[in-house]
Amino acid sequence: MVVKVYGPAYASPKRVLVCLIEKEVEFETVPVDLLKGEHKDPEYLKLQPFGTVPVTQDGDYTLYESRAIMRYYAEKYKSQGTDLLGKTVEERGLVENWLEVEAQSYNPPMFTLTVQIMLSSKLGLPRDENLIKESEEKLGKVLDIYEERLSKSKYLAGNFFSLADLSHLPFTQYLVDHMGKEYMIKSRKHVSAWWDDISSRPSWQKVLQLYAAPFKN
Amino acid sequence: MVVKVYGPAYASPKRVLVCLIEKEVEFETVPVDLLKGEHKDPEYLKLQPFGTVPVTQDGDYTLYESRAIMRYYAEKYKSQGTDLLGKTVEERGLVENWLEVEAQSYNPPMFTLTVQIMLSSKLGLPRDENLIKESEEKLGKVLDIYEERLSKSKYLAGNFFSLADLSHLPFTQYLVDHMGKEYMIKSRKHVSAWWDDISSRPSWQKVLQLYAAPFKN
Repeated sequence: MVVKVYGPAYASPKRVLVCLIEKEVEFETVPVDLLKGEHKDPEYLKLQPFGTVPVTQDGDYTLYESRAIMRYYAEKYKSQGTDLLGKTVEERGLVENWLEVEAQSYNPPMFTLTVQIMLSSKLGLPRDENLIKESEEKLGKVLDIYEERLSKSKYLAGNFFSLADLSHLPFTQYLVDHMGKEYMIKSRKHVSAWWDDISSRPSWQKVLQLYAAPFKN
Repeated sequence: MVVKVYGPAYASPKRVLVCLIEKEVEFETVPVDLLKGEHKDPEYLKLQPFGTVPVTQDGDYTLYESRAIMRYYAEKYKSQGTDLLGKTVEERGLVENWLEVEAQSYNPPMFTLTVQIMLSSKLGLPRDENLIKESEEKLGKVLDIYEERLSKSKYLAGNFFSLADLSHLPFTQYLVDHMGKEYMIKSRKHVSAWWDDISSRPSWQKVLQLYAAPFKN
């Protein structure tokens, strides 16, 4: 049975899609239109009670939260495709460290910028310029720490590509392509080289080609 | 060599301490006084560039982010103490699902309540009553979903205690003991039974006894 992923047009589900391609796992996608409120449909809420995307179904096994789903498939297909978890307990620990940094420190200001710059006009809401400025400052400080880290290792968790890097792809692509803030990446030498490396992976290029962003500026 | 944990007085490091006790791993703690700004000392920033607690050192291996550290020790000592990750890839997937729910949906409003109710007066800042109300509403909606979930399984990831439950202990203890909001737990039958169960574990009682909360209301 082929794995299902709900909500492929959006950024968080794209974490799962690029992971599945790296792991050479066949999947099909199920559209969920957030602007039409399909994530609040009773049938959808049975799968994902918080009403967010993505959800995955692997046979009759259901899972949500993009980073949890990635860990599950990376573990289930450990010996297939790209190794995304590291080879030892210590490497896995560093993957988890930087995956948590992405979730706790990188993504919150990035998500706010996405909502403010790419979504507010679609939702008919005013842009909060102070919040944009504050979020850009926060993200810049995080990127300064990444610059230091990436001057010492090729990828975030060490000299191997992992879920920690992969998890940055969808929202950072928005920053570069749709928010006019590519300079935040390009002005930092090691971050820029890292971004060129991870964003040019065939897996990610395939996701971009198959599933266009629903909101563009 | 004994494992070190930095910042034992605070809530996030207590996730690590209770995990280590469950795993029967010996540890020592290194105090970090956030009110004195010790988390911004250059020596500390070499260990944790974001300037937050906890950090752990296992010999010359350094790791940060509480949930990453818990996963590392739970995996490293998999066959020792309480199993906290589930026994199969599917169980581990559900542990990750609910650990992400804790990190992404439960903890943000809980953290805001902690800062607003327990910390603002210590920091000489005004309480933002609207933000408190909004955070309590958000947390209430999350707890409604927990109530439904816990009516079907004894613990969040299934009928086994795991990191997903354990990660809720430190901040929920603040809610119950120091914020006057015990009713948020007690008014929900299954959440209340779950809380009584997990908070009475000897591991957690030991952490509370050894490391008092630095801020109380």
